[in-house]
Amino acid sequence: MITCSKERMEDLIVTFSKFGDAGHGGITRYSLSPEAHQARDEFVKRMKAIGATIETDDLANVYATIPGSDSNAKRIVMASHVDSVKNGGNYDGVLGVLVGMEAMQTIVENKIPHTHPITTMIWTNEEGSLYPPAMMSSGVVANDYLPEAIAKKFKLENMLASKSVLDKTKTFGEALDASPYKGDKSNRLNPDKYKAMFELHIEQGPILEDAGNEIGVVTCVLGMFNYRIRFYGQADHAGTTPMHKRQDALFAAAKALVFLHEEIDKLGRPELVYTTGEIVCHPCVHTVIPDMIDFSIDVRHEDPAVRQQVLDIIKSLDGKTIEKCKCEVELAWQRDTVYFNKELVGFVKESADELGISNQYINSGAGHDAQFASYMMPTTMIFVPSKDGHSHCEPEFTTVEQCTAGASVLMHAILKTDKK
Amino acid sequence: MITCSKERMEDLIVTFSKFGDAGHGGITRYSLSPEAHQARDEFVKRMKAIGATIETDDLANVYATIPGSDSNAKRIVMASHVDSVKNGGNYDGVLGVLVGMEAMQTIVENKIPHTHPITTMIWTNEEGSLYPPAMMSSGVVANDYLPEAIAKKFKLENMLASKSVLDKTKTFGEALDASPYKGDKSNRLNPDKYKAMFELHIEQGPILEDAGNEIGVVTCVLGMFNYRIRFYGQADHAGTTPMHKRQDALFAAAKALVFLHEEIDKLGRPELVYTTGEIVCHPCVHTVIPDMIDFSIDVRHEDPAVRQQVLDIIKSLDGKTIEKCKCEVELAWQRDTVYFNKELVGFVKESADELGISNQYINSGAGHDAQFASYMMPTTMIFVPSKDGHSHCEPEFTTVEQCTAGASVLMHAILKTDKK
Repeated sequence: MITCSKERMEDLIVTFSKFGDAGHGGITRYSLSPEAHQARDEFVKRMKAIGATIETDDLANVYATIPGSDSNAKRIVMASHVDSVKNGGNYDGVLGVLVGMEAMQTIVENKIPHTHPITTMIWTNEEGSLYPPAMMSSGVVANDYLPEAIAKKFKLENMLASKSVLDKTKTFGEALDASPYKGDKSNRLNPDKYKAMFELHIEQGPILEDAGNEIGVVTCVLGMFNYRIRFYGQADHAGTTPMHKRQDALFAAAKALVFLHEEIDKLGRPELVYTTGEIVCHPCVHTVIPDMIDFSIDVRHEDPAVRQQVLDIIKSLDGKTIEKCKCEVELAWQRDTVYFNKELVGFVKESADELGISNQYINSGAGHDAQFASYMMPTTMIFVPSKDGHSHCEPEFTTVEQCTAGASVLMHAILKTDKK
Repeated sequence: MITCSKERMEDLIVTFSKFGDAGHGGITRYSLSPEAHQARDEFVKRMKAIGATIETDDLANVYATIPGSDSNAKRIVMASHVDSVKNGGNYDGVLGVLVGMEAMQTIVENKIPHTHPITTMIWTNEEGSLYPPAMMSSGVVANDYLPEAIAKKFKLENMLASKSVLDKTKTFGEALDASPYKGDKSNRLNPDKYKAMFELHIEQGPILEDAGNEIGVVTCVLGMFNYRIRFYGQADHAGTTPMHKRQDALFAAAKALVFLHEEIDKLGRPELVYTTGEIVCHPCVHTVIPDMIDFSIDVRHEDPAVRQQVLDIIKSLDGKTIEKCKCEVELAWQRDTVYFNKELVGFVKESADELGISNQYINSGAGHDAQFASYMMPTTMIFVPSKDGHSHCEPEFTTVEQCTAGASVLMHAILKTDKK
């Protein structure tokens, strides 16, 4: 079986690591920044060199396409992003573009016959680091197909008005207008022109590494919900208020957090994840008893019945009084589990098996552009291992061998899709 | 027995409530602000009207003095502050100045004979709301007499360089230079010129109100310590990191907080107070497991042996690992219990008893300028009740009757000191 080139893969990773190099092993490459444009320039240069045609759409998404034997056939696309978080690593996002480039070059150099045109695509602003929210362009491009609540959040006009977190006078729309990659709306990814989308990504967790598998055959993006839990107390002087008179919102919140961990863990669901990442304290002065604590709880599991069990535990706090502080529970955000296309998932599994690459089924706990694209067209994802499970940080690492294996599996899955 | 005037007391409270009136029952009157200068102007006008001499020192502390029969005798001073916290009330600080004014006017109008000159004093910047720290001027004026660690913190040059919390380009020193109340260093409160200091203050707690007493005979300012407790975890993705792999610093901190409450409460000391008022979370993003939590713990009790018991519990966490997160415990600040002058405390008690005003011994959980002054000269404090224990907020309230009773007790304690 034809496989991708480890040498070219290494060259691609090393080359793209220079665009936004932060000087200590990682990158800062905000979407539409000069560094992100350098990465796109390199992408365009290399794709033109293998005979690809370049298109851009009104969100500055970039598409490099090689023809298939049937010029009327729909395209098959491999899509990811080249923007990063602040002090991010060299793999999250960009690897999905690099393996697309490598798969296309392998197909071209080996003259592998295929009917459908094949495209590698760069999504603009997946991270949303400078201009929130994350997955901005796919949220706009797939907008007509998304569930109402999500579609509303990602309306184009809202996205264009998104302000830079570093300079509130600048908007995403202005950055887009200034980009040489802003093109025509008619070039947007759409189900009339595209047959299927693949996205390869690092796992961002430790499951593949722990299991010793090189490929994750992704079946779904986990359903999740995010609630805010608030406790209201009474601000009083730390030195003059007897303990029995206090309404200490932080003590109440600490007890609630321990309660939540105990009760949720009793469900005995090892694949369930839940996180309190944010806690806000008011007035947050060391000599004043806190009168308000507001914390987040993010819960993810494939099965809605399990999510409901967790929600029941969280909601049991609503209106309850702990340490004389009233509790209030409020929904911030939720999404259902998004299942990827079964046929494409099968092609990924078959490709890995045929190549003799160790693999397993896995789900994605994180959100990706593929999840929005999947509402428009058959879509799936491939994971490669993340060393120590790290992501969104400089120590992000996947070996060249693992990246190349990922490119080979992706290429064969594309070729299987082409034959279908 | 001669007592102070309820009508004048009411007029004083109403008049001074206008300077910095925030429009909903309270005031914002930062030190050296136009509003604070209005309050000083009113003070000076009224004190001159009863024949007092005005002096100011290099920290803009203001002194209004009426003569005694012996022009060589040391002065007796009643001192407090007129600055407030943001959206503070009409009693914290200013009441101690108003009762001094009223006591002096009662002495003058009734021609009560006294040997020593009597002074009412305004301390600059007791709250430290705009220019931290709190008790700034007394920390500078008493600096040569303070324990080394405290003296170091309150060095004049550091205080002059203190930056406005609203505008980091402005310093306390600049505000002082711009104040018409900046005077000569030789006028500072000092033990060669002053015999004793009294400070009347609202209790800022519920003890007098709950006991139905009108006067608190303050015996000490509680010893205290403030520690920072930190947990170090590992930041990982909320959606991709299995629960058993996590090092969640917030979960560790919540467990530690519950542990601290349980263990400290086992000591069975109802007069002990401890507070976690501040909690800092990093990176504080709802989709990221926190890798660092830093919280404060403020502990106050008169007896150093009890404080040590609490400290032993806190220190038992140092170096310990909870939920795979390492704990670090660090001292931020401490002070010993400051006992007030026994003779002056006795004069306050006798005065209240002789006036037939219900009273009790009490300690101060909060810090006051009197605590620094007490290192220089005989000093004590008098508390009046705080409705519902409120302070540092607009609902602060003490009845005119209670304020007047406080003024009368203060006046008689001054007269007893004068006779000694």
